[in-house]
Amino acid sequence: MSNVELKQIFESKKEKIDAYLENILNNDEIPDVLCQCIAYSLLNGGKRIRPVLSQITAEKLGIDPDGVLPLAAAIEMAHTASLIHDDLPCMDNDDYRRGKLTNHKVYGEAMAVLAGDSLLAYGFELCLQELPRLGFTQSNILNALKIFSHAIGPCGICGGQALDITQEGHEGEGEFLWKMCELKTATLLRASITASAALVGAGEKTMSCLHNYGTHLGISFQIIDDILDVTGSISELGKTPGKDAREGKLTFVALHGLERAKELAMEETKKAIDSILPLGPDFEVFLDIAEYIARRSK
Amino acid sequence: MSNVELKQIFESKKEKIDAYLENILNNDEIPDVLCQCIAYSLLNGGKRIRPVLSQITAEKLGIDPDGVLPLAAAIEMAHTASLIHDDLPCMDNDDYRRGKLTNHKVYGEAMAVLAGDSLLAYGFELCLQELPRLGFTQSNILNALKIFSHAIGPCGICGGQALDITQEGHEGEGEFLWKMCELKTATLLRASITASAALVGAGEKTMSCLHNYGTHLGISFQIIDDILDVTGSISELGKTPGKDAREGKLTFVALHGLERAKELAMEETKKAIDSILPLGPDFEVFLDIAEYIARRSK
Repeated sequence: MSNVELKQIFESKKEKIDAYLENILNNDEIPDVLCQCIAYSLLNGGKRIRPVLSQITAEKLGIDPDGVLPLAAAIEMAHTASLIHDDLPCMDNDDYRRGKLTNHKVYGEAMAVLAGDSLLAYGFELCLQELPRLGFTQSNILNALKIFSHAIGPCGICGGQALDITQEGHEGEGEFLWKMCELKTATLLRASITASAALVGAGEKTMSCLHNYGTHLGISFQIIDDILDVTGSISELGKTPGKDAREGKLTFVALHGLERAKELAMEETKKAIDSILPLGPDFEVFLDIAEYIARRSK
Repeated sequence: MSNVELKQIFESKKEKIDAYLENILNNDEIPDVLCQCIAYSLLNGGKRIRPVLSQITAEKLGIDPDGVLPLAAAIEMAHTASLIHDDLPCMDNDDYRRGKLTNHKVYGEAMAVLAGDSLLAYGFELCLQELPRLGFTQSNILNALKIFSHAIGPCGICGGQALDITQEGHEGEGEFLWKMCELKTATLLRASITASAALVGAGEKTMSCLHNYGTHLGISFQIIDDILDVTGSISELGKTPGKDAREGKLTFVALHGLERAKELAMEETKKAIDSILPLGPDFEVFLDIAEYIARRSK
């Protein structure tokens, strides 16, 4: 598949999720002041990689990708929640995100905390409200939500961010970095694929291949992030580059140097591709996605 | 039922939930540093009113109350998450909670944010992991989690806290206060009863009575909270009293005066009792609970 074709697939799926996310905030029960604060970050033109992956997964498993939109939205909401909270002064203290002021710079820290909390809970509410109406079996819904909840909790992104902040673990630096990366980034990226697969009832072999693919894709994604923090510009990234280095944070670039980090990203991309190959030509798009993510510049 | 008997019921159920909460934190997947921070607030001797209500509800509906422990724990975890976040400097800026330093005073703000986020997600994970094994129907599990997620999101405690912080709404003061109180306090207290009832498969009439009971109980609970903020001492409350008044916050006492607030609490207690009466003598304990909550001094 050409780069252009892949971009078109991403673009059309991104439009769907953008429209869907906008729609779910039309809810009179949510106090206006909170709703605006949530919308500011949720409808802020993210790349939507995770919900696009959820949709593509469903499609490749023979299911209408619109059906998984509530789950895809919940995953993007949890991702947005983590970004809002990570940007807080007490965490990474970032003023810009996606080229705009961060949530707390506009709405204040208290509202930013509440917007993040809201997004975490509202994703579940949305799934529990919508998925049973969309014809998925109750068993598949429960399995999908189990994968999702694991990815966003203390064994997933929260745990990874705690390791990132404290830089404290029992392991050596290399092992610690790997674990932090898996928790902070890989679990949710992987869940955007595996939770969707569970929702549409994928079999054991498919689940296992997608699980491995998602892990390697997620790690490659984080290594590229570390690289872009060194090589990217604020206009490309939409956020301040060079922060990790200035703060002396453990990253793949800090530990291994830029060249070795690039090699590691390629190795993880290769492993991702090897993991998906057993599923045959129907899943070819996942090979292109792995290469697309390895080549990204923002 | 005598006060002593009710206290004994609460005490024995509180012991169950305390032991259960301690046990779920024995999870090697959670990074140590985050686990300690979570445990500090979660295992900090709260009154456990909500999970006790969940257990009593199940029992009165003829189900072993131990079965609803994962849900009861999730509700207490979400409550604890909201307390940790509410105590942050950017929110209510409280130094003491339950007689001990607040979470961020010990672990720092960043970890306190992550502990709250973790508790929100981990409650769902726990329920999705444990409830299917405990013999509940998938349909009942989904219904219970729907009620739970609604109560802790932007239409529940997050929305209520947003109103409390901004003190901004379209309504007049009286209506605004009522709405804030319902979102901030009543939704989760009610959900601790109704989600448990949904989990054990209660019928429509029972659900409706318990829903109304929970709403009035929750509002009465908040009015008493407002009263205790004026009349209570730090040793009784375990937190700094008089804060609402000093910050000029809209409370039932501020709007109506102390005496009228006491009357309103009694009126809500009476309405709670009237709501539960149609369910007959099996549910008598709920009458005692309503009076117990109205009389509480901490």
